Amino acid sequence: MRTTVGIVGGGPAGLLLARLLHQAGVDCVLLECRDRAYVEQRQRAGILEQGTIDALRACGAGERMDREGLPHDGVELRFDGRGTRIDFPGLTGRQVMVYAQTEVVKDLIALHLAEGPQLLFEAQVTAVEGADTDSPVIRFTHSGREQTLHCDYVVGCDGFHGVTRHAIPDGVRQTFERVYPYSWLGILADVPPSSDELIYAHHERGFALLSMRSPSVSRLYLQVPNGTDPASWSDEQIWGELDARFALADGSFKLARGPITSKSVTPMRSFVAEPMRYGRVLLAGDAAHIVPPTGAKGLNLAVADVVVLARAFAHLHTTGSAELLDAYSDTCLRRVWRAEHFSYFMTTTLHPDPEQSPFETRLQISQLDRIASSQHAAAEVAENYTGLPIG
Amino acid sequence: MRTTVGIVGGGPAGLLLARLLHQAGVDCVLLECRDRAYVEQRQRAGILEQGTIDALRACGAGERMDREGLPHDGVELRFDGRGTRIDFPGLTGRQVMVYAQTEVVKDLIALHLAEGPQLLFEAQVTAVEGADTDSPVIRFTHSGREQTLHCDYVVGCDGFHGVTRHAIPDGVRQTFERVYPYSWLGILADVPPSSDELIYAHHERGFALLSMRSPSVSRLYLQVPNGTDPASWSDEQIWGELDARFALADGSFKLARGPITSKSVTPMRSFVAEPMRYGRVLLAGDAAHIVPPTGAKGLNLAVADVVVLARAFAHLHTTGSAELLDAYSDTCLRRVWRAEHFSYFMTTTLHPDPEQSPFETRLQISQLDRIASSQHAAAEVAENYTGLPIG
Repeated sequence: MRTTVGIVGGGPAGLLLARLLHQAGVDCVLLECRDRAYVEQRQRAGILEQGTIDALRACGAGERMDREGLPHDGVELRFDGRGTRIDFPGLTGRQVMVYAQTEVVKDLIALHLAEGPQLLFEAQVTAVEGADTDSPVIRFTHSGREQTLHCDYVVGCDGFHGVTRHAIPDGVRQTFERVYPYSWLGILADVPPSSDELIYAHHERGFALLSMRSPSVSRLYLQVPNGTDPASWSDEQIWGELDARFALADGSFKLARGPITSKSVTPMRSFVAEPMRYGRVLLAGDAAHIVPPTGAKGLNLAVADVVVLARAFAHLHTTGSAELLDAYSDTCLRRVWRAEHFSYFMTTTLHPDPEQSPFETRLQISQLDRIASSQHAAAEVAENYTGLPIG
Repeated sequence: MRTTVGIVGGGPAGLLLARLLHQAGVDCVLLECRDRAYVEQRQRAGILEQGTIDALRACGAGERMDREGLPHDGVELRFDGRGTRIDFPGLTGRQVMVYAQTEVVKDLIALHLAEGPQLLFEAQVTAVEGADTDSPVIRFTHSGREQTLHCDYVVGCDGFHGVTRHAIPDGVRQTFERVYPYSWLGILADVPPSSDELIYAHHERGFALLSMRSPSVSRLYLQVPNGTDPASWSDEQIWGELDARFALADGSFKLARGPITSKSVTPMRSFVAEPMRYGRVLLAGDAAHIVPPTGAKGLNLAVADVVVLARAFAHLHTTGSAELLDAYSDTCLRRVWRAEHFSYFMTTTLHPDPEQSPFETRLQISQLDRIASSQHAAAEVAENYTGLPIG
């Protein structure tokens, strides 16, 4: 087999890249190790930045998103028993959309199966080789056979645990990492969300987040110690803890309860691998960088990467110039580090570290109080949250 | 002896408070443990916020400041071999003044000696007693005699090492603290400053600050390990290290050298004692809170405290209402915590911690890059640096 761009990984980054390349007339093949059903039910992020919304619409994948997604004009920060709203359009002219990643994936898969390009499920990539040659190869097994895909370029959209990153030699690749001393216990519950907008709550007992999947399904999170077994939390304990962390001083907030349909624990990690390109191998999305979920940046960063990358391949295809491709890593990394910083800022401002001093707790409150009282501080959060321009 | 307000400590906080009370017709006595010559040559901060400038002018202590001080409309942040200017008037409509604290002290002492109120040098306060009575006392020795000053109120302006704070019982007082893993080696040099405005430099070798005392005297600082002996740095080493940390990538910056007339090392600490009032004893300035010098907030916070406090005593004097006095601690602490947060932010953004990871270094660069490219991020620095409204 031979193609121009071999894409490893059929999450949102790989699927969107394949769609953009296909529309630009660049030949590509997409390999995904799982089956379709697994990929379509994987629960991940759910907040789309303005740039992500625009990109999905532009490639024809925005129809159901615009019908079923929930446009949001702000979020609430809750701390010290009070709440402050960040008004996105007022501060930035932009908004976000609540539409689950898993729905984005379903929409893109449906388009692929109807219009191409070639998408192989259950294609287990075992190695990416020849990054420093003109013809790198992807070795994979499919339908019980070992196969080789010869490419002009290979793009790794295979996530943090993927194999593509390892095609970049250790001596070239520099990694940056931070693991946080807490995780998120996330639940899905069949109950209308108790707030129309997300609530990010700082509390001495720990962070909590009120979010939603739809008008009838709540998505709620609690900061828990690393290594927590989700089964160790009873439904009653979870609701009680959520009540405590979202409480307003005047007692006016009431969290509606409903059947919990899913419980899971997510660790928090920051990670960046530089460069995002080596020879003929490029990385996009979680393969190159991970953020803790507090800033809602993971999916959006992946989309930004592949938008930049698709433009670069289209430029090469139409002009023969590799100029944009050569700039890919630097172009993306500046934005990646901005998102890394914002995600770190949101995470460390909203979560009490179990080891932190009372001094540090007061600094968190002072920072949140500043966001509540200064237009510049609020706008700084709003600009980063709704997303910076791509490219 | 008897007075309405007994003030412990004749630094800028005590001196300004005494002047403001005297002008408001509130009887007070100021006790300073050192002699006049010592107090007038003590080297401290040198950046006055807009609110401090306004307060000194309003009480008649601004004449020499306006003649000899250097108004500054911005500072430069230097990192990654490049510089970005923060334009204070453009972003906030405010500016700052370079005028050394020791000059403010001289001006206030001259006014005191000419116009009152009573100011005793070499008055060694040994104890403040009776905070929870209607008539607290200050015990001190002066001219070899033990004396007692009976007061309606006692104000501790006696700094971090002062005795007044300890008149607040341990069970009432809560303290918050952070000690940083680096210090500043500061020099005075007889050479015109190599930049008209301050330069805050982030460098992998450590932070550096270019400042000035006058058009002919440079004030320069280098981040050094805690416990550094200033004598262990030769003049040549200091200039060489300053050159390295201020270097621009294009080689265009040249630091002028001159005779070094002073070398000293300052540790970095954040500290807050709450509340700032207990019964009839009140704290102001460094007696209640310390900041690392990176945000230039120490002197300015002290001035803000005593402006609020003088208003409260004047209100009590003219109306008989202790309402403002009762609000003093809460009024000041919100602003104190803002300044603590800003000082922490400036310090931890500009200094590489010797223990920090490469990930954290990249976050510092990303934060500085954001300030260089976003108006909101720059304005957030400018508003905090030039100072928030008092009261």
